[in-house]
Amino acid sequence: MANITKKVSWSSRADELGAAGEGTPLLNGSEQSRAFREVRLLQWLTVSMPAVSSLCCRTESFLDYDNIENQLFLEEERRMSHMSFRCLEISRWVICGLIGILTGLIACCIDIIVEKLAGFKYQVVKENIEKFTEVGGLSVSLLLWAVLNSAIVMLGALMVSFIEPVAAGSGIPQIKCYLNGVKVPRVVRLKTLMVKVFGVICSVVGGLAVGKEGPMIHSGSVVAAGVSQGRSTSLKKDFKIFEYFRRDTEKRDFVSAGAAAGVSAAFGAPVGKNTTTHKFFASMISTFTLNFFLSIYHNNPGDLSNPGLINFGRFENDSVAYYLYEIPLFIAMGAIGGLLGALFNYLNYWLTIFRIRYVHRPYLQVMEAMLVAAVTATVSFTMIYFSTDCQPLDPEHSEEYPLQLFCADGEYNSMATAFFNTPERSVRSLFHNQPGTYNPLTLGLFTLTYFFLACWTYGLAVSAGVFIPSLLIGAAWGRLCGILLATTTDNGSIWADPGKYALIGAAAQLGGIVRMTLSLTVIMVEATGNVTYGLPIMLVLMTAKIVGDYFVEGLYDVHIKLQSVPFLHWEAPATSHWLTAREVMSSPVTCLSRIEKVGTIVDILSNTSTNHNGFPVVVQVTGNEEPAKLCGLILRSQLIVLLKHKVFVELARSRLTQRKLLLKDFRDAYPRFPPIQSIHVSQDERECMMDLTEFMNATPYTVPQDTSLPRVFKLFRALGLRHLVVVDDENRVIGLVTRKDLARYHMGKHGLEELHLAQT
Amino acid sequence: MANITKKVSWSSRADELGAAGEGTPLLNGSEQSRAFREVRLLQWLTVSMPAVSSLCCRTESFLDYDNIENQLFLEEERRMSHMSFRCLEISRWVICGLIGILTGLIACCIDIIVEKLAGFKYQVVKENIEKFTEVGGLSVSLLLWAVLNSAIVMLGALMVSFIEPVAAGSGIPQIKCYLNGVKVPRVVRLKTLMVKVFGVICSVVGGLAVGKEGPMIHSGSVVAAGVSQGRSTSLKKDFKIFEYFRRDTEKRDFVSAGAAAGVSAAFGAPVGKNTTTHKFFASMISTFTLNFFLSIYHNNPGDLSNPGLINFGRFENDSVAYYLYEIPLFIAMGAIGGLLGALFNYLNYWLTIFRIRYVHRPYLQVMEAMLVAAVTATVSFTMIYFSTDCQPLDPEHSEEYPLQLFCADGEYNSMATAFFNTPERSVRSLFHNQPGTYNPLTLGLFTLTYFFLACWTYGLAVSAGVFIPSLLIGAAWGRLCGILLATTTDNGSIWADPGKYALIGAAAQLGGIVRMTLSLTVIMVEATGNVTYGLPIMLVLMTAKIVGDYFVEGLYDVHIKLQSVPFLHWEAPATSHWLTAREVMSSPVTCLSRIEKVGTIVDILSNTSTNHNGFPVVVQVTGNEEPAKLCGLILRSQLIVLLKHKVFVELARSRLTQRKLLLKDFRDAYPRFPPIQSIHVSQDERECMMDLTEFMNATPYTVPQDTSLPRVFKLFRALGLRHLVVVDDENRVIGLVTRKDLARYHMGKHGLEELHLAQT
Repeated sequence: MANITKKVSWSSRADELGAAGEGTPLLNGSEQSRAFREVRLLQWLTVSMPAVSSLCCRTESFLDYDNIENQLFLEEERRMSHMSFRCLEISRWVICGLIGILTGLIACCIDIIVEKLAGFKYQVVKENIEKFTEVGGLSVSLLLWAVLNSAIVMLGALMVSFIEPVAAGSGIPQIKCYLNGVKVPRVVRLKTLMVKVFGVICSVVGGLAVGKEGPMIHSGSVVAAGVSQGRSTSLKKDFKIFEYFRRDTEKRDFVSAGAAAGVSAAFGAPVGKNTTTHKFFASMISTFTLNFFLSIYHNNPGDLSNPGLINFGRFENDSVAYYLYEIPLFIAMGAIGGLLGALFNYLNYWLTIFRIRYVHRPYLQVMEAMLVAAVTATVSFTMIYFSTDCQPLDPEHSEEYPLQLFCADGEYNSMATAFFNTPERSVRSLFHNQPGTYNPLTLGLFTLTYFFLACWTYGLAVSAGVFIPSLLIGAAWGRLCGILLATTTDNGSIWADPGKYALIGAAAQLGGIVRMTLSLTVIMVEATGNVTYGLPIMLVLMTAKIVGDYFVEGLYDVHIKLQSVPFLHWEAPATSHWLTAREVMSSPVTCLSRIEKVGTIVDILSNTSTNHNGFPVVVQVTGNEEPAKLCGLILRSQLIVLLKHKVFVELARSRLTQRKLLLKDFRDAYPRFPPIQSIHVSQDERECMMDLTEFMNATPYTVPQDTSLPRVFKLFRALGLRHLVVVDDENRVIGLVTRKDLARYHMGKHGLEELHLAQT
Repeated sequence: MANITKKVSWSSRADELGAAGEGTPLLNGSEQSRAFREVRLLQWLTVSMPAVSSLCCRTESFLDYDNIENQLFLEEERRMSHMSFRCLEISRWVICGLIGILTGLIACCIDIIVEKLAGFKYQVVKENIEKFTEVGGLSVSLLLWAVLNSAIVMLGALMVSFIEPVAAGSGIPQIKCYLNGVKVPRVVRLKTLMVKVFGVICSVVGGLAVGKEGPMIHSGSVVAAGVSQGRSTSLKKDFKIFEYFRRDTEKRDFVSAGAAAGVSAAFGAPVGKNTTTHKFFASMISTFTLNFFLSIYHNNPGDLSNPGLINFGRFENDSVAYYLYEIPLFIAMGAIGGLLGALFNYLNYWLTIFRIRYVHRPYLQVMEAMLVAAVTATVSFTMIYFSTDCQPLDPEHSEEYPLQLFCADGEYNSMATAFFNTPERSVRSLFHNQPGTYNPLTLGLFTLTYFFLACWTYGLAVSAGVFIPSLLIGAAWGRLCGILLATTTDNGSIWADPGKYALIGAAAQLGGIVRMTLSLTVIMVEATGNVTYGLPIMLVLMTAKIVGDYFVEGLYDVHIKLQSVPFLHWEAPATSHWLTAREVMSSPVTCLSRIEKVGTIVDILSNTSTNHNGFPVVVQVTGNEEPAKLCGLILRSQLIVLLKHKVFVELARSRLTQRKLLLKDFRDAYPRFPPIQSIHVSQDERECMMDLTEFMNATPYTVPQDTSLPRVFKLFRALGLRHLVVVDDENRVIGLVTRKDLARYHMGKHGLEELHLAQT
């Protein structure tokens, strides 16, 4: 997440970070907001800071989810028969199927490799510990463990830092931005996928406090972006298929299906606000593929009864699941989750700022990752070493690697089940182990240490998710709550199941950190195979969100905001009706004439200070910025293709045989349009004219200047717009609303606030 | 569904029905389409037919899901503080909670009453049968059974036919239309809810081949519409709360949440394409309330482990759920389901036309319902009587009312488990009874008879759903398939579980009839408590849909189409890019001046031949239909309120103290705006002027005339529009696109077809 590359940002980093926190309370300016105080500190922190982050880029920063309906497009659509549309529809299903299969396979590979390698590592360390427990000198074991972890993590961190920094973290914020319409550079490339898969294996095997689930969502998205385009630019291989889908609108839909397939592979649950049949299909296929190959791997071919990657085991309640009077307790736990989550996010926020400031060179990032790996091993070892919580070794115990250590024969160290294990297994133990398996002190210490370890880990230059660590922290203190309740009340029997409280605690903690409600409910219900806990889990998640939101945003949003990405939420801020298009729009607008001089176009595109991406086309540009009648809208990318193919009026006249530009030419250039600097235009050519009529979108959406902000916002979000032309009552262009103009406004504690987003 | 009332329709019934089938293939006119032949027959059928249906109404036929952002509204929004918006948000949660609680309570009541009454009825009949089995004269039992059923069904049918015909059927098509933006009269009224609840109890207890699940969706919607408005117009009670929500946009959101709560109460599963957190919350609360009260009823208070109304029992697979090679079989079953579903819909389509033609008087409808009830009892009795399928009475059998009849002691009649039971119980038996419980002949005969009974029943003037009967038919032939597979293959053991095939068959049949995929998968997975069958169920549902769609539309769509409701699908027909706004729009448009003469307005509103609902406001109406500059849009309902309050320029001048019209006045009139005929305007007043500036929406969405149909469509659907003004390049009004203009176009077998929808 916090990778620093050496690109130039939208703005100098100082502005960016300063701006992220700076809220100018528009409605209630009486008190100095807390955010404002932070800003001072941030500005101090960020003086002369190296620019940029993994979420930003300079050119073509946004995606256009509104179809470019120009003449070429309409002609193609009109030529297409009923049959062609059927074929397209079939292609969509095929692509979704492929996405599902590949995503499932990737999940399967990750799962098997992690299991093998982690098993091998734990076996080696366990044997070593057992050897030295008898003869003394356990520090050798600690060293072995720490070095092993550091070495493995180093591999992953090297890949991420030096090869593809955008593969760091879970990738969820990046995909969230992508689907929102912000183009994160290189986020859906093949190389990113490779690094991600390798990186996540290293992080999990390296014993970091991370999960492998979040990255699956990113992986699924990359797969989708690749498959749906029918080519790989990295491999320079074009299969000449699915060419119709080479535009932002279609690609977005597939990426969204890929993300769903990733979620499904990870959690066995198809979730999402806007589930379509295509997405659902991709999800189903992905779970199916994963299960199918895992069943073969487990020598039980054809048995398809396992859900996704994580499976916390089914909560079976033949009798009573929970009582009505437990609900207030659950809600209280939700509040604790919200508080702890807010603390987590707050600490991580500061840590990220620190990282941006001081740990921005790749080699430093690798060293930090190795340090964290070593510290994690050391802390774990110390905790296990000093723990006196011995439990009898159940013949049918679920521990894979029980550590006897200083326990009596036939007993094992309970702290080790939490630390000396992959986090998934630890969660499962906390949910399902018999009451009495853990003593309260073990759980308390574990919660404390793991909380800080996980917080430190998130944001390292390694591929890793935060879901499982959050669940683990929550499960630990949740189980602790359950045990304390059972001991402090007279009627201990009804609190008999601390596993139930572990589940609620896990939900509360995860909700407190990532602040989702709907999707998490589905995921938790799915991962536990029991719909009975649906309502309590939802209540807990909602409480955690409300409590947490009071202090600080969700972890993903914190990171998105730190990058000052112009992220658009679903709805306009509530109190923004008094703003109109006239006030939010950018003005004056650079307009082009329908038939424009090549030189003018080149100059406009080369102007790095404005760097606009969409240009209203007007009947005739008048001098001195008088508004002129709108007749279309054209994008930078289209102009670039036109310039590249030298579609000039004069040339068309002289060379009569010149091939007419086809939609295919635009599709071939998509999505990596060359920069304007790479296109050579001679001095003679600068005097030529370009006729934009055929290429511009002749019917762009427009709004009158008095339109209220929520109305503009609704249009933007509902249609996935990138530019919205503001016209006066004679249809003359007087402004252009872009995504940034809208993303500036957001609800703060004291009403509407205006952020100073970095300029394009 | 097919109730005929004596209202005047949008058009004469002959046109309407004729139009429903009449497709003019626009792209491929070479061959006479099948639809066209049907039309001839329809026209013959429908000559001089009494008008109307339960889905149509005359005035205000549509809902406006785009906010009317006039000056009043904006001023109110701008006055509202940050705090007020918080309160509104809290109100939304409270309303959703209330919706959930009330919906859950209704479901609970229906469930308990049905269980009690049906239990009582079956007990009486069982005792009677047992008595007469020994002494002979079983025809008395038959008579008793048939008379009981008819009498109970008669009560329900009387209520529905005479009191509230819109309560007939499942209500799903009506709610689908409502959420789509078509106003179905009286569909969300308290009276409708009462009749619905009473009606559904009667239908189920009366032994019809119906379910009580579909109507829950309607009930939930009515509850939502009532609660969210904070008043009941029927009861003339206004609680003066939630006044902010008295407009179409907000009400729609709540109705949608209510529908979700209904689904959740019925199936224990929150489903839907666009699930929001609010909807999810309402669903959760509804399931919770239902379970809570049912647990009290079952003397197990606090046990909250039951999902919704239907619960088909969990499919437990400790070992293998299904094998890969079974998937082709499942898909084949999906195809069978699609075929049978198409047959069902086709038969029901003709039956509905027959009903519209001949069974349109309430007393005839009641008699038909009674006849169906009697026939159902007779057929059931005959089938049981002649069945020789005796099964040993398992001590832990799940049959509530085992009928011994002519079986040996300690045995029971297997056919009776299917017929002599509520359909829910029968489905559960088919899913879970041990292999060998049913012999193939029993299942075959049952499928055959129940298929026709269910088909005859759907569309009767009773409140009833089609979900459970469809599942039952499918479960029967699915189980039959399972048994046949087991007997015809050598390795019978792997096909050991006919219950699995019953599940797949049930999914296939339901999918073949209603043609949903996503929601049904979730519902089926939820009702069986096992996510393992997710993929096969989805494949089956998709196959059923593809196969079924080849022949005829889904049952709900068939009924919606028979009413020629201008229903807008999610996307524009694929091959419609060659149509532009200019071609689809209505033109010329009746425009109003910003300051308009009262007489003109009254005349325009009273003009029954046009009966427009939205009027572009222009700077100044020029004579002879010259286009004038657009400056706003005003609705019929707003004009009516203005006329009623006599907001005339002259009066405002003379009576200086006249109260300024507030948003509240519009909200008080919502949603039952008086007709223009009820508003008295004197001859003097006709000469007054009205200033519309404050009340019109000053920033209506517009499109240029060259905008392609898919683009217009997207705007319409994404924003929930009812009117879209088409302007030329000088912002002058040249046309108006309404919902009907778009709904005309649809994809037929031979490409784009234009329907002749009834005129407003």
